[in-house]
Amino acid sequence: MSRPLPRVVVLAGGVGGSLFVRGLREALRERHPGVSDAELAAAITVVVNTGDDLWLAGVRLMPDIDSLLYRLAGVADEERGWGRREESERVSAELGAWGVGWPWFTLGDLDLGTHLARTSWLRDGASPGEVVARLSRRWPLGATLLPMTDAEVDTQVRTAEGDLHFQEWWTRHRASLAPLGFDNPGIEDARPSAGVLEAIGAADAVLIAPSNPVVSIGPILRVPGVRAGLASASARVVGVSPVIGGAVVRGMADVCLTAIGVETRAAAVAAHYGARDAGGLLDAWLLAEEDAGESAEVAALGVRAEVRPLWMREVPLAARLAADALDVALG
Amino acid sequence: MSRPLPRVVVLAGGVGGSLFVRGLREALRERHPGVSDAELAAAITVVVNTGDDLWLAGVRLMPDIDSLLYRLAGVADEERGWGRREESERVSAELGAWGVGWPWFTLGDLDLGTHLARTSWLRDGASPGEVVARLSRRWPLGATLLPMTDAEVDTQVRTAEGDLHFQEWWTRHRASLAPLGFDNPGIEDARPSAGVLEAIGAADAVLIAPSNPVVSIGPILRVPGVRAGLASASARVVGVSPVIGGAVVRGMADVCLTAIGVETRAAAVAAHYGARDAGGLLDAWLLAEEDAGESAEVAALGVRAEVRPLWMREVPLAARLAADALDVALG
Repeated sequence: MSRPLPRVVVLAGGVGGSLFVRGLREALRERHPGVSDAELAAAITVVVNTGDDLWLAGVRLMPDIDSLLYRLAGVADEERGWGRREESERVSAELGAWGVGWPWFTLGDLDLGTHLARTSWLRDGASPGEVVARLSRRWPLGATLLPMTDAEVDTQVRTAEGDLHFQEWWTRHRASLAPLGFDNPGIEDARPSAGVLEAIGAADAVLIAPSNPVVSIGPILRVPGVRAGLASASARVVGVSPVIGGAVVRGMADVCLTAIGVETRAAAVAAHYGARDAGGLLDAWLLAEEDAGESAEVAALGVRAEVRPLWMREVPLAARLAADALDVALG
Repeated sequence: MSRPLPRVVVLAGGVGGSLFVRGLREALRERHPGVSDAELAAAITVVVNTGDDLWLAGVRLMPDIDSLLYRLAGVADEERGWGRREESERVSAELGAWGVGWPWFTLGDLDLGTHLARTSWLRDGASPGEVVARLSRRWPLGATLLPMTDAEVDTQVRTAEGDLHFQEWWTRHRASLAPLGFDNPGIEDARPSAGVLEAIGAADAVLIAPSNPVVSIGPILRVPGVRAGLASASARVVGVSPVIGGAVVRGMADVCLTAIGVETRAAAVAAHYGARDAGGLLDAWLLAEEDAGESAEVAALGVRAEVRPLWMREVPLAARLAADALDVALG
């Protein structure tokens, strides 16, 4: 008989998060030959950032949820880096002709099918959590996706030129407008969506994906109850640095870190999350070999520093990284 | 100098109505060479049935409005008889995969662009009348489209198996379930949309298109204020029979007529509308040559009977018919 599957909770954003979760799924498949997708879905719970969500052209978009959904389902456009494979943009061209939506934000036709289904279910009274559960039934994902909250707490970016929705700042301006800060209006009244705290409480391991600490992991941690749930979790909380060799691996996380006064260094991000023993988040922190010199600094925070290869451009590398993180959490 | 353009109001449903209005536009162009689309739009006001409207997959459809919009714009799929030319159905296939919408009701991609724009504007607080005005700006229509009302008064069909939305009865069941009656719930509290009563009051001619008398013209007449507006209009009200030779020209209007106890005869439809002198609608009624024998019956109602060629499969024939109706109204 094989060992029982560990129950793993991952806090994650979209692109980096989905690669990490695919790696985790692959690592569990390697360690538990013959494991079914349903068993994996019962074992892996991903608490997903919804700060990127938005209303556009009358439909509700959940970009990080969809990134995870499409990538776990194997229907994502890996080359382009977002959306569905074999996508077209006929509706989007019409929306442009009608002057609806954002001209710099393309809605693919297949993707719009998802947005329309989601919006229709929301209109019928389903919660975002229920909507994500319904979306998750179409393909065998091998993971359970939970939005961090059912509340609409879209991330706003404060700039000298006024507040922007995160997507406008990120996609239209490519994060070029200096951010003064990030807010999730209303988040103080939000609650974790159904299952989030239960999954954290029952977990054998909690992993913080190498997602953007500010605008991906940050909103999840701001949902009231999540920090307390992590603090009291019986599982170890292990984070993976999104910074390698003093640079962010993807996206424009450095701009976000700078805006909140955090250096783009692996140890600085660990310090930002803080040691669980000291009221923070982490029991352990995985740093890249390039950043091994920062290990002592991390350890001084009261966080176990573990040096591992962090590059995960492909699923096999992500599987190795996820296995390493899991071992640190379970070992 | 050419004669001034007459101000014409047409009550109309979608398919038959749009051909008739295209004919009217063409007739006015022939009589007023050099007339601009803007001048035509100021002269021709179409009061459009919205009983066919529906919410589907979270978006608002206005089928009769869109029929008129697409056909007047010249972007309709004339061969298929509905929707846009060069249409595709990629989103609809996705919606089917998500189990959203009606499997028997295809939403074209280009068409969905319209529905999404409309729904987005409605979400932003625009009224249906304002939405139709915005939709009408994209192409030079040569006519002004007004929804009969801003209220949602979707037609329900009573059958022995329960109530159905008109679209389900019409499109899914091809009107095969015997209707016991047609209702527009809430219509008693509806008001004509902005401009409807003003256009009727200022009209030089009011024409009833040869649309379905029960489910296209019927709902328009049920909007409180419309009948009174027509009764007090200074213009003549001229109807065109949708029945030729004892058969309806298109659609399944005979089933609808039977359901409300009206024979499928030109004179019976005239009697259903009634003479304006006797509290009804009509000053005059155009019958086909095939139905010339019913002229006396129409005249006995107190309605002037005029026999004309009513077939209008192509725009030139529709233009001749519209010109005839206009002459009866203005002459």
